[in-house]
Amino acid sequence: MIEMVAEAPLPSKEKNFGEWLDGVLQKAELVDIRYNVKGFIVYRPNAMFMVKRVYEIFEGLLMKKGHSPALFPLVIPISNFRKESEHIKGFEGEVFKIDEAGGERLEEELILRPTSETAIYPTFALWVRSYKDLPMKIFQSVSVYRHETKATRPLLRGREFLWIEAHCVFADEQGARNQVEDDMMITKKAFHELGLPFLMVEREPYDRFFGAVDSYAFDTLLPDGRVLQVATTHYLGQNFSNPDVFDIKFADKDGSRKNVHQTCYGPGISRIVAAIIGIHGDGYGLVLPFGVAPLQIVIIPIPKAGKEDMIMGKSRDVFRRLSRSGFRVKLDDSDERPGEKYYRWEMLGVPIRIEIGEDEVKGNIVTIFRRDVRSRERVDDDKIIKHVRELKTLVSEELGRRAWDRFNSAIVSVESRNELLEKRERSKIVRAPFCGRRECSDEIKAETGGLEARGRRIDIEEVPSGRCFWCGREASHIAYLAKAY
Amino acid sequence: MIEMVAEAPLPSKEKNFGEWLDGVLQKAELVDIRYNVKGFIVYRPNAMFMVKRVYEIFEGLLMKKGHSPALFPLVIPISNFRKESEHIKGFEGEVFKIDEAGGERLEEELILRPTSETAIYPTFALWVRSYKDLPMKIFQSVSVYRHETKATRPLLRGREFLWIEAHCVFADEQGARNQVEDDMMITKKAFHELGLPFLMVEREPYDRFFGAVDSYAFDTLLPDGRVLQVATTHYLGQNFSNPDVFDIKFADKDGSRKNVHQTCYGPGISRIVAAIIGIHGDGYGLVLPFGVAPLQIVIIPIPKAGKEDMIMGKSRDVFRRLSRSGFRVKLDDSDERPGEKYYRWEMLGVPIRIEIGEDEVKGNIVTIFRRDVRSRERVDDDKIIKHVRELKTLVSEELGRRAWDRFNSAIVSVESRNELLEKRERSKIVRAPFCGRRECSDEIKAETGGLEARGRRIDIEEVPSGRCFWCGREASHIAYLAKAY
Repeated sequence: MIEMVAEAPLPSKEKNFGEWLDGVLQKAELVDIRYNVKGFIVYRPNAMFMVKRVYEIFEGLLMKKGHSPALFPLVIPISNFRKESEHIKGFEGEVFKIDEAGGERLEEELILRPTSETAIYPTFALWVRSYKDLPMKIFQSVSVYRHETKATRPLLRGREFLWIEAHCVFADEQGARNQVEDDMMITKKAFHELGLPFLMVEREPYDRFFGAVDSYAFDTLLPDGRVLQVATTHYLGQNFSNPDVFDIKFADKDGSRKNVHQTCYGPGISRIVAAIIGIHGDGYGLVLPFGVAPLQIVIIPIPKAGKEDMIMGKSRDVFRRLSRSGFRVKLDDSDERPGEKYYRWEMLGVPIRIEIGEDEVKGNIVTIFRRDVRSRERVDDDKIIKHVRELKTLVSEELGRRAWDRFNSAIVSVESRNELLEKRERSKIVRAPFCGRRECSDEIKAETGGLEARGRRIDIEEVPSGRCFWCGREASHIAYLAKAY
Repeated sequence: MIEMVAEAPLPSKEKNFGEWLDGVLQKAELVDIRYNVKGFIVYRPNAMFMVKRVYEIFEGLLMKKGHSPALFPLVIPISNFRKESEHIKGFEGEVFKIDEAGGERLEEELILRPTSETAIYPTFALWVRSYKDLPMKIFQSVSVYRHETKATRPLLRGREFLWIEAHCVFADEQGARNQVEDDMMITKKAFHELGLPFLMVEREPYDRFFGAVDSYAFDTLLPDGRVLQVATTHYLGQNFSNPDVFDIKFADKDGSRKNVHQTCYGPGISRIVAAIIGIHGDGYGLVLPFGVAPLQIVIIPIPKAGKEDMIMGKSRDVFRRLSRSGFRVKLDDSDERPGEKYYRWEMLGVPIRIEIGEDEVKGNIVTIFRRDVRSRERVDDDKIIKHVRELKTLVSEELGRRAWDRFNSAIVSVESRNELLEKRERSKIVRAPFCGRRECSDEIKAETGGLEARGRRIDIEEVPSGRCFWCGREASHIAYLAKAY
């Protein structure tokens, strides 16, 4: 094992995450923030390849679970949008409005979808007739539009962001509750593949999605100590399906007419890509899991005068073998110096680099550099494919393990205000007995510089002993608190 | 071979294409036209699966040719949009305008992309620095928005439609012209896979894309005798890159600064899906090529009292073998009668149906029904996979052959007005020597009930002998004329 020694081109992401992120977004040519509408960014090819892969992972999991793709219009008549009172209250301050088309004023204003309940559910009311039509499970992969008033940040908070929204309809509450569990399993599987750690929580009652009965969320943690909501799933009950809103009903087996129960689920693709970048990356740039890397292996010939043919011949041979084995591989035979190539492909996060020079030709070996641990090893020619296949798993495990270690060590339990003050420095996520009151949560946020109650864990049962760490009233549950994006 | 005898559930598409199309869109649950904004439709899962497959085909071909995916914002500041004078003239009567967001008037109005030249090219001006950056080839898969004043038709003409737009930048005209050829090859390959016939033409000069130097198009033919533009590619020259518009320039090898040459290319995904539906379908519903069929094979057990276990056992076994071989296959073991199942899966265009009953179990065979020719044949159990693989090719060839036969027989050559009048009935596409004048074209359109000059073929050289079939002036080329969507 030979360690690379070279100065990292990016600042420490632990010390200055903002600067690190801006640097990697630019140097790895991920997004362009110079588009001349505030809050809207350009996804460059390096980011868009990742976006597409993350979409494929989630869509594949959804389809395996019986969801079908659909596509509803971008524009929603304002009258649809105004049907559910909580929903409109939540989103009306953020919508983009179209008032003119083809040079003429529209009869009815249209909004750009901030989320599509009010576009989709009137159509569900037409589709659902009988219990035989249920469950109905669709998803769409689209951009949504919210005129955020908070400061926008590329990929983390934009006025146009990419997501999947899955919308499901059930005959009864149990069916819908089971779907919420399924959504959580899907998220867990995808996050496992991406090596991303998460807290799976039920949000506090005052922090639910507008129009939901219960809201569940996945929060991950970025290096600056702030959590990022990357997916949510909601039990909507009959809030949208009742006769006063969209009146989605079906004839049950006994002939009675019943209003359906609903769920919606939304993994945020832009934010998940941000999490992959922020959580796995280092001072040399991106570090990508095999699953999302646009390029999985790059082969760099190390030139040596008089040996060019041998070296290029072997490089091409290795390229062919890896391509045929189904890897996304590139042979970089450009005129740049190897060092320049190393720099670029490390910045782009290519998981494996294979170096082939005179020594490698003579010794019937290749030198393999792993981006995640930044170390080299020599591998016999006849073991390359097998070795790379093993690395595919090892790299995923290493990235997941490292990320979970950092995540878990950022969670600190406290029992009182004083303990919080003592431990505040190293506790990015605070675990504490909590009374569950909104007033208490608001006070905590104001006095701690932004700690928010993110909810209670749902994957394990945690019973509080004693009193709310903040106000001293009886604790109703163990809450997790963090600063959030 | 046993022919099915049953009344077709749809009218003849040759006699009444409009009614046939409305019928198949509804009965095959492809789109829902009841969304309450005119010109906007809902893509139901059966259509959306096809949309996704068609996208995959084109994206795969583009990436093989060195294009990379990107994504630019939906909204374009009106000032960007107004930069190129021809372009704005062409589209300003059709744009949707956003004037308000988050309850406040915007400082600058935004439009929804009707096409993205004016969103993308200002960014290209930032990205292109040196000859080393060229060629630059990106594409995006998005919806675009045009407030069409012509009557809208689902998939054929909507105010929101799905396409890919590829935008490329080159150092010189030759590079850009070669790209136009590449775009045509990509389209040909994709259309071949989809079994769709086409005319590849250079549009008449007065019929170019707004802002293009030269426009090339693919027209296919629907059963009502109207042609449908399904893809276009344009040589833009320096119309957008010149210093007065977006000033996209690069430092050449000799250090001189030059403005780039550009192309853009757009296969219309919604329209290509419409063409697949309209061209291959029949009175029983959709007929899909293997490549785009959401489901490629459906297995129907034919129940027989006392033999259920044997029949289901064999059905499951065949299902497993076909799944493992990579086919998209479903075993329909629902309680419906076989006839009902036949009806539904034929309507959905599943290319192959496998029927398994008592005879099939006893004879160690299966009965295979081909949707395209609607005929049955018996196949030995041990030859099923091999046979289905062969059918995959045969079905594609059959669909392509039939479609091309109809297409070619719809083209009729005429040399004079009189000959046109004589042959008008059977000539859906008219091939004729033409003067190339706009006035002549307008007169033809007015006097023939809509025949439009669609341009000259570019895949073969056709030299006109003599005079314009309509006005008698000297002919400049052989033109193709048709009524168009």
